[in-house]
Parts: sequence; C-alpha cells; structure tokens
Amino acid sequence: ANALALTGSAAGVGVDQELISSVPSWNLTFVERNFTDAEAAYCRSQPSPPSSFAARWVGKEAVFKSLGVSSKGAAAAMKDIEILPNESGVPTVTLHGEAKAAAASRGITQVLVSLSHSETVAIAFAQASS
Amino acid sequence: ANALALTGSAAGVGVDQELISSVPSWNLTFVERNFTDAEAAYCRSQPSPPSSFAARWVGKEAVFKSLGVSSKGAAAAMKDIEILPNESGVPTVTLHGEAKAAAASRGITQVLVSLSHSETVAIAFAQASS
Amino acid sequence: ANALALTGSAAGVGVDQELISSVPSWNLTFVERNFTDAEAAYCRSQPSPPSSFAARWVGKEAVFKSLGVSSKGAAAAMKDIEILPNESGVPTVTLHGEAKAAAASRGITQVLVSLSHSETVAIAFAQASS
Repeated sequence: ANALALTGSAAGVGVDQELISSVPSWNLTFVERNFTDAEAAYCRSQPSPPSSFAARWVGKEAVFKSLGVSSKGAAAAMKDIEILPNESGVPTVTLHGEAKAAAASRGITQVLVSLSHSETVAIAFAQASS
Repeated sequence: ANALALTGSAAGVGVDQELISSVPSWNLTFVERNFTDAEAAYCRSQPSPPSSFAARWVGKEAVFKSLGVSSKGAAAAMKDIEILPNESGVPTVTLHGEAKAAAASRGITQVLVSLSHSETVAIAFAQASS
Repeated sequence: ANALALTGSAAGVGVDQELISSVPSWNLTFVERNFTDAEAAYCRSQPSPPSSFAARWVGKEAVFKSLGVSSKGAAAAMKDIEILPNESGVPTVTLHGEAKAAAASRGITQVLVSLSHSETVAIAFAQASS
C-alpha cells in the first residue's frame, strides 16, 4: 500500500533562467562538455541556435535542481541530463551516468521539463516524481 | 492497483513567458479568437488589462505545453483553454473542444496553472496530472 | 483505496517574479515583518544579499499562491512561510501559523519550491501536494 501511495509523488521542482546572451553556445568546448551530440545537432537545426542552446541549458539546470542533490562535485554532470524532443515535440528528459544514479538513489522515476525563451531570456521548469 | 497508482501522477508541465507589450490585447480580432467572453470581461475589469490579457495568454500557452500534444494544427485552440479565477481568486483551468479531447486522450484529469506579471513580463506555469 | 490514491496528488502551483531592485531588503522593517531570523541570517551570509532576499521573497509569494487560499487578510503572513536550505542546499519550505493552518485545511502535506535569480530578476516556482 505504501509503495502505491508513493507512486506519482512529487519529489522535487526546479526553476532556472538565463539571459540567452550569457550562454556561450558559440564556444565548442562548452557545447562539447555540456551537450550530447544529439542535443547539439538538434539545437543547430533550430531557427535560433543560441536560443535553443540557452533554453536547453536552463532546462538542464532546472532538472538538476529538481533532483534535490547537493551541487558539490556536480560541475561536469550537465551532459548526463539529456533533453530531446519526443515525437510530439515535447522536451523529454533522459538521465545518464551520475545524474541517473542520483535520481535512482532518491527513488525518482520521472522528470518532466518545459522550456521557454523570449527574445532575451530563456527559462525552464522541471518536476521530479518518485 | 495500477489505476490507483496512476491517480495523481504528473503527466506534463509547461512554462511560458512573453513581454506584455508583445501580446496584442488592443486587437479585437486577437482577443475574440483566443479568449472566451468571460475571460475578456475579466481582463478588462482588472487594474491593468494589458497585463491581465498577457498573463492569461502565457497561461494558455503553458497549459497547452503541459498537455504534451503536438502543436500541429493547434493554432486556433487557445480559446478552448479557459482560465478564470475561482471564488478564492485562484486561476482555474477549464478545457473545451479539442483541448478537452486532447487531455482526455492522454488520461489527464486535472490541470493547474499559476500566472505572474511584472511591469514588463508575463510568465505562467502549468502542471497536468493524470 | 481513495485515501491512497489522493496521497501525492497535485493540489496547487505558484509562480512569482520580481525585479531584484524592487524588493526592499535594505529596509529593516520589511525584513523583520516578512523573514524569520534564520532566513535573514542566511540571506545576509550569501554573496549577494539583495538577490537572496528577493529570491526568497518571490519564493514566499509562489508558495502562498500554491496553497490556493484567498489573499484576503494574508498581508502579514509571509513570515509564516519559511524557506531555508536543507543539508543539500535545496530550498525547503516550513509553514507556521496561519499558512500552516491554511495548508492543513486544504489537506496539503508537502510544498516544494525552487528559486532562481539572474542579475536583475528573481523567480520562483512552488508546488503543493495533498
């Protein structure tokens, strides 16, 4: 009964925002370190690649916050949080490596994310459920 | 047991933002196409109608995103997402027409939304549960 | 079975934003009225106290919205919504007084919050579950 009750429980939320101009998507080292190949290819195919990189970047930050883990030592883990559109175009989170382990350790089974950008600002919201 | 477990599960989230000045609430055709009569009357009764129209507009976009459906062909569906204050003043979502059908097809039984506007920017967050 | 199904259900969401410059964190009366001693001490220990006070302030507003109660008479209740980092640094909500009573009356058992600030804007998202 307890396990049933816990299914679907809210485990964490995350919000993040950045000026699009402050996300260095022109920097190949930054992109290589923080985005999977599929993410980079997707962002470069969009009408405004800097906006897409920035939206995805704040998405990763929001997902990280929603996992509720300490930020110590997580500096390099953003590539482990992959956000790609599903067949309906909905941004969908796949966790790898340390992020996947952190989520599992907290019993998190699903992370939802939404992204938005205006001309200047990218914003994202994430919700983790156990 | 499975059905029980799914009750209350997070199904989708949505975030959206716009500059208040970019939402053409002075345009009667735009308002007529996208807002119900009750929404338009409510927004026009508020201290800053342009802010209220903009907040509700991003609310509709956020709700749409939370439904997790493809945006193809949905251009005219915003009027089907109605957001009105309940008796406590809390923005409350009612779905009509295609939006209602899309939600039902995904098993979504509840959509929550929150709206905020500063002097210049309107922002909204929505959460759909199945 | 019904009680089980309700555990973990989404009860409300809240979003809020403010210009950091519009939150009068230099005003001791404002701080004393709206922040607990622990919150004020925490904000003053951070790299940018005005940003921390502003983020926490919009966090309180977002939590209040997520409770889904009427804003009538709630002007002085922000101190009852306390947001402090847990041992992992995750902002964690504790309700006191009227806010606690309001949450209990709606069956709300958990409120999650996330905070973000750029150079100029603070934003927060909250989610209440029953």
